[in-house]
Amino acid sequence: MYSEIKLASLRLESGEILNEPTIGFHTYGKLNARKSNVIWVCHGLTANSDVLDWWEGLFGNNALFNEDEHFIVCANALGSCYGTTGPITPKEGETAQLDRFPLVTTRDQAMAHQALFEALELEQIHVLIGASLGGQQALEWSILNEQVTRNLFLVATNARHSAYGIAFNESQRLAIKTDPTYGNGQLDGGKEGLIAARSIAMLSYRTYEGYVKTQTEKENDRSSEFRASSYQQYQGEKLANRFDAYAYVALTHAMDSHNVARGRDSISQALHKVKANTLVVGVSTDQLFPTSEQKFLATHIPNADYVEINSEFGHDGFLIETDQLKAVMRDFLNENYRQIRPTVFKTTIKKNQLMNLVATI
Amino acid sequence: MYSEIKLASLRLESGEILNEPTIGFHTYGKLNARKSNVIWVCHGLTANSDVLDWWEGLFGNNALFNEDEHFIVCANALGSCYGTTGPITPKEGETAQLDRFPLVTTRDQAMAHQALFEALELEQIHVLIGASLGGQQALEWSILNEQVTRNLFLVATNARHSAYGIAFNESQRLAIKTDPTYGNGQLDGGKEGLIAARSIAMLSYRTYEGYVKTQTEKENDRSSEFRASSYQQYQGEKLANRFDAYAYVALTHAMDSHNVARGRDSISQALHKVKANTLVVGVSTDQLFPTSEQKFLATHIPNADYVEINSEFGHDGFLIETDQLKAVMRDFLNENYRQIRPTVFKTTIKKNQLMNLVATI
Repeated sequence: MYSEIKLASLRLESGEILNEPTIGFHTYGKLNARKSNVIWVCHGLTANSDVLDWWEGLFGNNALFNEDEHFIVCANALGSCYGTTGPITPKEGETAQLDRFPLVTTRDQAMAHQALFEALELEQIHVLIGASLGGQQALEWSILNEQVTRNLFLVATNARHSAYGIAFNESQRLAIKTDPTYGNGQLDGGKEGLIAARSIAMLSYRTYEGYVKTQTEKENDRSSEFRASSYQQYQGEKLANRFDAYAYVALTHAMDSHNVARGRDSISQALHKVKANTLVVGVSTDQLFPTSEQKFLATHIPNADYVEINSEFGHDGFLIETDQLKAVMRDFLNENYRQIRPTVFKTTIKKNQLMNLVATI
Repeated sequence: MYSEIKLASLRLESGEILNEPTIGFHTYGKLNARKSNVIWVCHGLTANSDVLDWWEGLFGNNALFNEDEHFIVCANALGSCYGTTGPITPKEGETAQLDRFPLVTTRDQAMAHQALFEALELEQIHVLIGASLGGQQALEWSILNEQVTRNLFLVATNARHSAYGIAFNESQRLAIKTDPTYGNGQLDGGKEGLIAARSIAMLSYRTYEGYVKTQTEKENDRSSEFRASSYQQYQGEKLANRFDAYAYVALTHAMDSHNVARGRDSISQALHKVKANTLVVGVSTDQLFPTSEQKFLATHIPNADYVEINSEFGHDGFLIETDQLKAVMRDFLNENYRQIRPTVFKTTIKKNQLMNLVATI
């Protein structure tokens, strides 16, 4: 079920105040009497709040997270374009702010989740899950409010967005800003640029091996118009048909802003604030959020385990390898987890090994 | 010394004919009486024919390849914008063809090198060197004319451009075509798009680790305007100030076209035609032309060795690690190479090991 609430106001990290912002969100299932069955999902860059639609296999009937047992909440992120206030939302008595929409950080997005959490009169989350940009929000939220969740699943995410990630986002923004319809006041401006931006993003979501395997011509006689080119165009157009260029720019800036150490002593000190039982999941071939970043998280979050899922799909593996995700998450939530852990988490790296691995970060 | 020659015509693979194309080229040093001291360089995507300027450390006074000992030739590639005929060259009695310039393949580019070779009345090349797009041309040329060179150095290149490489090029072209000044008839159109394109290319030339090491803020208080963003913009602008968007599109299409098997039996059969003593060099962290591609070349070219140079700079390592390049090339050219080989080429992989490595390609 999709709903919306209007907050009185939201003060952003920058000091700017959003008046009466809307939070659009989906809920599925029923909150139980003890309010102990809340599953909260923070979505990635271009997803919406309908998690049953885009995270099939992990969410749905008979899935690990389902409407019979759980009260599932997924809010559209602040700055997006699927119901929650963002660049294309008209400002009271004015038009949409578009490229003048203020900077939203992952911490601001976490504050918006917290505001919705309070508005829904919830007391604690049983499992808070976020992947990629969603993982950045879930992590920030678990630092801002150390009691908010009992269990925290951080998938293919990081403590501070990397220079490589920022560079990838910047190239996408450069492509969007090359489109003269971006920034000219049109509500649907920047669509051509968004096509290029999405095609760039795909290069970071997948891998060399994945492209070679799925986008190589069988024959050798072609000298132009290759499958890989059509694939890039197709992926770009598919996103441009359902997403907004202004929201895309705002959300990539949010991702770039992500640094749990900002305004705090250090990354390590910030991560030590997380009280939840935490499972950090990396995807073996992720180029955008490489596993060194998740190992780093698991090293510095006090009650954290690291597990790596095998995939040839790179960062997109978190959306594709739902069988593996389901297995490791189900085991982690098993009340006998501490006993079964050694066999289940074969790929879990011990903390003292991790310290060596991340010593150079 | 920079010179130009005009050919009568050049028939392209597509069947189109370029009338009176110009080849712009640099030569350095003197051809010896036996015509046995020719070093020929095929440059990469955006370089020019002044190899002493851009491949310092390998070419120059007292360098491995120098004007005292060698007659060095470097021709600007067909389709480029540094003297050789390309999209911005005015057609006889007409204006430049810009985005209507015909498709040029790496085989066409090799044919242009062959035409210059004949015009200069050369008999054989002592060492033919090419890296990246230049390596693709050098390889094609060594297949088209099996006698052209005694020694062949193929650096960070491949036998067929990969789907991942094509996808990277396509994203860059999508960014360029988002610029409305591209394709509107202006000679200098597409500059904004070219800025975005170059910033995208940088992501494939470098590595996650390289960006993190050189473009990460020291402090944690920033939430926008990161170094990595400025770096992308700077690299884009630097190229746009010296290069042309139409040539860039033409040369990325040439790179995409590269497939030694086109019109031949198979990749393996084509590579078996290479008669030169061949040294294939890979860069350990290359993401765009990963070392699996060079190992594949060394497996199928009859007289080939493979050596890997260590670098944290990714594909750009071929321009940066000139000390390592110089060392492996000097040893390869040593007349006692067959004796010293086992110690020198510590990283050389034996052919039977290679067969396993590339069996899945």
